Amino acid sequence: MAKRVAVVLSGCGRGDGSEIHESVSVLIHLSRAGLAYRCFAPDAPQRDVVNHATGEPSPAETRNQMVEAARIARGEIAPLSTLDVEAFDAVVFPGGFGAAKNLCDFALKGADCRVEPDVARVLKGFHAKKKPIALCCIAPVLAAKVLGTGNAGPGCSVTIGHDEGTAKAVAAMGATNVALGATHSHTDAANKVITTPAYMCDASPHEVFTGIGKMIDAMAAMLR
Amino acid sequence: MAKRVAVVLSGCGRGDGSEIHESVSVLIHLSRAGLAYRCFAPDAPQRDVVNHATGEPSPAETRNQMVEAARIARGEIAPLSTLDVEAFDAVVFPGGFGAAKNLCDFALKGADCRVEPDVARVLKGFHAKKKPIALCCIAPVLAAKVLGTGNAGPGCSVTIGHDEGTAKAVAAMGATNVALGATHSHTDAANKVITTPAYMCDASPHEVFTGIGKMIDAMAAMLR
Repeated sequence: MAKRVAVVLSGCGRGDGSEIHESVSVLIHLSRAGLAYRCFAPDAPQRDVVNHATGEPSPAETRNQMVEAARIARGEIAPLSTLDVEAFDAVVFPGGFGAAKNLCDFALKGADCRVEPDVARVLKGFHAKKKPIALCCIAPVLAAKVLGTGNAGPGCSVTIGHDEGTAKAVAAMGATNVALGATHSHTDAANKVITTPAYMCDASPHEVFTGIGKMIDAMAAMLR
Repeated sequence: MAKRVAVVLSGCGRGDGSEIHESVSVLIHLSRAGLAYRCFAPDAPQRDVVNHATGEPSPAETRNQMVEAARIARGEIAPLSTLDVEAFDAVVFPGGFGAAKNLCDFALKGADCRVEPDVARVLKGFHAKKKPIALCCIAPVLAAKVLGTGNAGPGCSVTIGHDEGTAKAVAAMGATNVALGATHSHTDAANKVITTPAYMCDASPHEVFTGIGKMIDAMAAMLR
């Protein structure tokens, strides 16, 4: 039977939800690797809505993370609250501002961020069961916060690209940034945390696709 | 200098805009082929908004095709009215219901559909200049209608999958369906029209990615 992978989304669009190229790259590579996947997202409002044509906030609008993420998932989606760690072999978190504004408030609070309880539950659950956790772009800050020193285990090593401020915040949360480019992935074997910086780097779509491919390949190898 | 490709979007999501997996697959393959791209969409309201988690209409909402498509384009987008055929070497139309509800009304009217004037202008323009036109999923009905017998030229041959009703409508518009699966693309060399059925077939994400890769590769070969 195919191994089962949960994909955690947080909306649909880099500015207020899941980064679309990254999310689709994850699904393509999971599909190609023969891994069955199921998408989840919080059944809760996005922190905000951003007009992606102008980059400006669209304060009159409210959108639900799960309803928007269903656009990426082609309708097949479930509330994050129903994600049962026992039912899946691994979990993937694509990036985008949704990971840093909806799944936690890192975009506002940095190292002092608060991770949404359901997200922390999922990360701690997969970690405790020694099941692989893959995260890309800014999403590794979730692992840094939840699996950092003083929390579930020893600080993990992750990729968040070359931004110094983000690297410092990751260090302040007890984790380590491994500064790699978008076509690379990094594996923290002890924690089974696999990351790639994706659009944290100034990369083109096929470079992001390549790096995410390496991340999913490393995850698939762990599942064999 | 890199060849330049225009990508015509119509929202963000299979039910009311551009199919996201197809659109991203197009951008990844263009990027990988070394082709420079620019995204366009009508600066006009979508025909409707669909809640993709339930599949039901969301009649209280209105969304703009270009503003939503900017989520796929990561902010880099321009109104379709500004697409200058002279400035590009080829054009690509991803699928999704947006192609059949926003760019034309095929989803409502079938073979009697009306194509939005800017879309017809673009298709006729690239065709007249013998520049490649790539379309996937349901988007080939646009070429069937605009380039069908009695319009700009002899009816073209396209892929729209295995659905008999759609194939009949394509025939009624003066074009021909070539029934292929999602991992294949078809080239109408005389018209320089290249198509792949994508999610018109019951396909998985990596199969759609593969078929779109063949479509873009065929287009890139024409541009060499």
